[in-house]
Parts: sequence; structure tokens; C-alpha cells
Amino acid sequence: MECIFCKIVNEEIPSKAVYKDDFVYAFYDIAPKAPVHILIVPKKHIVSIDEFKEEDNALLLRMFDVARQIAKRKGINETGYRLVLNTGKDAGQTVFHAHMHILGGDTLTDLG
Amino acid sequence: MECIFCKIVNEEIPSKAVYKDDFVYAFYDIAPKAPVHILIVPKKHIVSIDEFKEEDNALLLRMFDVARQIAKRKGINETGYRLVLNTGKDAGQTVFHAHMHILGGDTLTDLG
Repeated sequence: MECIFCKIVNEEIPSKAVYKDDFVYAFYDIAPKAPVHILIVPKKHIVSIDEFKEEDNALLLRMFDVARQIAKRKGINETGYRLVLNTGKDAGQTVFHAHMHILGGDTLTDLG
Repeated sequence: MECIFCKIVNEEIPSKAVYKDDFVYAFYDIAPKAPVHILIVPKKHIVSIDEFKEEDNALLLRMFDVARQIAKRKGINETGYRLVLNTGKDAGQTVFHAHMHILGGDTLTDLG
């Protein structure tokens, strides 16, 4: 298994974990673009958000639940936060295991 | 009712629609940050993605379904696309009716 995010969620590679359960693992981005920059990752290997199927609906909802929990825990639910999901080359997806970025803690630059 | 997105989804204010059903309305952003820049909006007035409750799960899933359909229709599922959900001031949320940005059609700048 060569996927780096599979190795992280299985704790074969260390990361600074923020949240974990049987389905989702969240950890600090190693190259943060904001004071709070955390990745929320399904433990199941799915290439991108574009590849989520109906059977993955519960997983997608859980990723959002975790995002909201983390936002609250970090206090950025009050100041504001951004969720970003990148699919493919043009979006700059670099790890081909779906993940949701949560960014906050300062004014974020414009999207695009 | 003073919410501009409520007026758009109810077609009281014109917009360039991309998709509509009973629950979701999608239209081109008037100030696009990428060649394809569309907003996917729940018809129900919810202030932000942070305010979605369990009863809104089906709505959130439908927003993702619509995003994937639009990506395919615009051909950006192949080249890549970004989904962005901004909550609050730091994220630059300007309209306080939840919406998902879908951006693609060119290399997108880094997030953050």
C-alpha cells in the first residue's frame, strides 16, 4: 500500500492527530496555509471527492460533522473558517486520497 | 425577505442558472474567480454550512450530487475542480445564506 494518507490514517506514519474514529482521521497539515489548517480524511481509500458514491454518503456527512466539531473546538466557528475539497490537477490535488481542508484563525485570501 | 440568495433561488432576481430542482439552485458567480465558477445554493435559508443540522443532511448530500453533475457537464471532472465553503468573516463569506463554490477550467491558485 503506497498511499501516504492510508499510512497516516492507519498510524503507520506519524502525524499530529486532531480527531479519530473508525471512519475518519483528522490531522494538522504539515505545510499550513493558515494558523489553523487541518485535513479531514476518510479512512477508506477513495481517490477524490468526485469518486464518492452513494454508499459513501454517511462518510461524507461524518467528515462535515468532524469539520464542525473541530471548528468549534479551535474557536474558529466564531471568527470564520473555510472548507476546501480539491479534485484533480487543476485544483492542485497532490495526494490522491480524498481529504477536506479546514482553514481558519486569520483572514483568508480570496478563493480561486 | 432581504436575503439576496433567497431572492435568486426564488427567481425574483435574475441569474444565469445552471441547475435547479425543488431543493437546490445553482448559478454562475457574477464575479468569477476561474473560467468555471458556479454557486450551489440550498433553497432553504441556512446562514452557513456551520449551521446545517442533522435534518439538513439530505440537502448537503444533494449539494454534492449537484456539484459532481455540474463538474461532469462542464468537463472539469477530468481537468480538476475545487469545492469551497466559506463560513464567517475570516473566510470572506459575504452572503449569509450557505453556498458552495465550484471552481475549475484553469489551474487554481493555492488555497489559504
